[in-house]
Amino acid sequence: MKIVIVGAGGRMGAANIRAVTDLDGVVLHGAVDRAGTDAIGKDAGSFAGIDPLGVFISDNIEAALEGADAVIDFTIPAASVALAAQTGARGLVHIIGTTGCSPEQDATIAGAGKAGGRIVKSGNFSMGVTLLANLVRKASAALLTYDIEILEMHHNKKVDAPSGTALLLGEAAAEGRDIKLGDHAVRVRDGHTGAREPGSIGFATLRGGTVVGEHSVIFAGPSERLELAHRAEDRAIFANGAARAALWARDQKPGLYGMDDVLGLTH
Amino acid sequence: MKIVIVGAGGRMGAANIRAVTDLDGVVLHGAVDRAGTDAIGKDAGSFAGIDPLGVFISDNIEAALEGADAVIDFTIPAASVALAAQTGARGLVHIIGTTGCSPEQDATIAGAGKAGGRIVKSGNFSMGVTLLANLVRKASAALLTYDIEILEMHHNKKVDAPSGTALLLGEAAAEGRDIKLGDHAVRVRDGHTGAREPGSIGFATLRGGTVVGEHSVIFAGPSERLELAHRAEDRAIFANGAARAALWARDQKPGLYGMDDVLGLTH
Amino acid sequence: MKIVIVGAGGRMGAANIRAVTDLDGVVLHGAVDRAGTDAIGKDAGSFAGIDPLGVFISDNIEAALEGADAVIDFTIPAASVALAAQTGARGLVHIIGTTGCSPEQDATIAGAGKAGGRIVKSGNFSMGVTLLANLVRKASAALLTYDIEILEMHHNKKVDAPSGTALLLGEAAAEGRDIKLGDHAVRVRDGHTGAREPGSIGFATLRGGTVVGEHSVIFAGPSERLELAHRAEDRAIFANGAARAALWARDQKPGLYGMDDVLGLTH
Amino acid sequence: MKIVIVGAGGRMGAANIRAVTDLDGVVLHGAVDRAGTDAIGKDAGSFAGIDPLGVFISDNIEAALEGADAVIDFTIPAASVALAAQTGARGLVHIIGTTGCSPEQDATIAGAGKAGGRIVKSGNFSMGVTLLANLVRKASAALLTYDIEILEMHHNKKVDAPSGTALLLGEAAAEGRDIKLGDHAVRVRDGHTGAREPGSIGFATLRGGTVVGEHSVIFAGPSERLELAHRAEDRAIFANGAARAALWARDQKPGLYGMDDVLGLTH
Repeated sequence: MKIVIVGAGGRMGAANIRAVTDLDGVVLHGAVDRAGTDAIGKDAGSFAGIDPLGVFISDNIEAALEGADAVIDFTIPAASVALAAQTGARGLVHIIGTTGCSPEQDATIAGAGKAGGRIVKSGNFSMGVTLLANLVRKASAALLTYDIEILEMHHNKKVDAPSGTALLLGEAAAEGRDIKLGDHAVRVRDGHTGAREPGSIGFATLRGGTVVGEHSVIFAGPSERLELAHRAEDRAIFANGAARAALWARDQKPGLYGMDDVLGLTH
Repeated sequence: MKIVIVGAGGRMGAANIRAVTDLDGVVLHGAVDRAGTDAIGKDAGSFAGIDPLGVFISDNIEAALEGADAVIDFTIPAASVALAAQTGARGLVHIIGTTGCSPEQDATIAGAGKAGGRIVKSGNFSMGVTLLANLVRKASAALLTYDIEILEMHHNKKVDAPSGTALLLGEAAAEGRDIKLGDHAVRVRDGHTGAREPGSIGFATLRGGTVVGEHSVIFAGPSERLELAHRAEDRAIFANGAARAALWARDQKPGLYGMDDVLGLTH
Repeated sequence: MKIVIVGAGGRMGAANIRAVTDLDGVVLHGAVDRAGTDAIGKDAGSFAGIDPLGVFISDNIEAALEGADAVIDFTIPAASVALAAQTGARGLVHIIGTTGCSPEQDATIAGAGKAGGRIVKSGNFSMGVTLLANLVRKASAALLTYDIEILEMHHNKKVDAPSGTALLLGEAAAEGRDIKLGDHAVRVRDGHTGAREPGSIGFATLRGGTVVGEHSVIFAGPSERLELAHRAEDRAIFANGAARAALWARDQKPGLYGMDDVLGLTH
Repeated sequence: MKIVIVGAGGRMGAANIRAVTDLDGVVLHGAVDRAGTDAIGKDAGSFAGIDPLGVFISDNIEAALEGADAVIDFTIPAASVALAAQTGARGLVHIIGTTGCSPEQDATIAGAGKAGGRIVKSGNFSMGVTLLANLVRKASAALLTYDIEILEMHHNKKVDAPSGTALLLGEAAAEGRDIKLGDHAVRVRDGHTGAREPGSIGFATLRGGTVVGEHSVIFAGPSERLELAHRAEDRAIFANGAARAALWARDQKPGLYGMDDVLGLTH
């Protein structure tokens, strides 16, 4: 399966290059980034810190798509929307890790899936996090009266809190109870807070060292607790999941899928 | 809902008496144990360390069942089988926490369910453990190539290892992969073990202090881990779950159910 | 050793009554609370949920101190300061678990120690927490450049955050680096926080279920973390530690001590 | 400070090359391994996966020691003993990470320290693990009656159990109580074990995924637990600690030191 990586010249692009090189059954066909990016013209392997691959990073998306089977795309909403029109028209697999799309942009992407693309779009391509979100939804529904708390820890360079993944897990918890996260989230606690409000979903944030990313969702009830946790050792898990999603999508009908589908969690 | 507790004169019986007293919608109707048990003749509440209830522990099961709606039964296999015939004939709810039944005994109990009883039978009535086993089964199937490890910690008086709940979780993990736990369990590691065998399910046991019971199931894959854990603060969680199961079973059709059904985890 | 419990009519008072009853070498001599408290006139044992002790809760502190060897006092600052004058004059052991004293009040209490009292004052009488604070101080000094984070979880009825014990651990961490906690504490994180400020001490708070109290202090450095954690299963640990401190203080010279001294952690 | 790395041609040697290159104040002076090793003749930097350093891996230890200030040596006992004679005679810093020395070999190495070497020898050069062992010793002495349990998790390629670090922590716990680990270690539990023997030190082992190394020492007493844990994210922590130890040893008197001395944990 011949894969083109878009957004190849950044940190996530390099991780995607390594992941595609590591996985059996896929091969790097092209690597693309915006004109003017430093990485343009470099060998994709050398750029990613591995052996040269003979594929050079270019700014010509049209050329790169010739003969390709799939695109892995961690870019920006406008770029992903434009690319979806092309992958849809060509019937390609399109793996989208881009975040921040508006509802209109999401609808356009879904249309490209109907038009012929095999699109997998997710805010987190880790197999472990995808499964965790699924289990959180289920636990939240089954333990309806239990208190839900979400804890995350990341390295000391991270500039926002809570993490996007913590919020994604909060959304999953809210879905399990058919409530809106925004109406029930308690993002900080300090000083005289009063007793915990029943039905709220609490967040807590830790920062330190070089921690790649850890998340725990705690369901606390009378005399017992259920804790569902994920620990990431390496950012490679996101790129590995994207490459696996590409392999999976090849055999699907045109449409828009999520990582839940890739893991067989939907029926 | 009028409940009779059988095996009332032991530690679990006392917990069941307290749980039935605490839960809204149920009332203690009778308390029974074998003739010769020390507790016979005592007030059930006083025996359980709470206020007197005016219900005295007796050895007359027939009398206790008169006018009852449900039985909570943590006894021995032969006693539970005999009791199932009576609850089935009377169309009562029968909550069975008895362990160690043979396949024949289980079949007899199932027959009583068909005959009119509303039976909920489980090796663990904790809502958290029941849900954990369900999530473990799902995770084991979704993360097919990940290494599974099961860790438990209990107080320093516990005389066997691994715990029954750890083995129950191991069974759930094995079911998720359609394998037999007995063929894949690695119960201890010491000295030169060699590399971990792919597909095995490992166990590790901690003992110390007054820990009521903690279990973790770890799914470890390339650069990530999913950990699903349960912490019990009090043995009351088992009795509380049994009392809730009784309330739930009242509205069901005759049959044999598990705690998965009570929690709505089966479709 | 004859012990008087002050503040006997509250939840902590009941725990102290049980702890004094359980520990060999000490006996309950008196139980006191403010006039008007519901518990006045009740048998202290019955009030604490154990067998009657023949000691009745009264509002007469003077009478209770007659013939006593020690006082266990979890009350309010003004009451503890007033009581310290009496225990100092009588040369009694005075165990103070009261929190929130001003520097002036602390100085008055220290003066009572010099005047003849054997005072042990602590914000947390748990042996485990006392040791934890000591280890945190040491680790904070040894791993000078590591990021320090303090996490706590308590039940859903707790009305303030972070917990007093979390702040006590933060103070220990600050002492290890000879800095002031107030200058370096980061008590909440939300939204765009920027990268973690080097040298800060972060706090995070979880609330849920019936968790008695859990605290972790994390030292996160390049590619490694040290985590020092305490889990309380029962509030009895505080009362047990207070009763043990009373026994220990009997053999000491007059003065003001802490739980570090009781555990032999100071040289 | 000019450093020679012995055993440079293996996995730990490569880590040592990277650590020396990363740390300010030290420079790679030589890299040595046994004749016949694949790495002989290669540039040390290239071999370690970083930029070329212009230092080539050789089998001539004599030549490499000329002009050197320090040696980092993770090899085998016989090689370290022979090397200690040379570093002692030359008055060099000698960092020894070799494990498995006999008491006689340890005595010979200590003699080299007296003869002029500045030797730091440790079974684990991680700053976090060194501190952890120190804290475990202290906690073990302070909580004399608490049950001690040691848990470790490593990746699925590890071939022995428990890990060397787990045993090192067990030794620290035993030292805190002035007992012998061999007399009190319980390395596995399975089946009918009986109640936990007071005073024993239990081990439990988890294996899975790509976990670099995690260790927890648990002190479990009545209604409370203290847990002291270390998580390694990268094997670099051992090489980084060895390079730091070399810098520290430069300013010391000749003698044999441990990592406790480097961290200032001994008085």
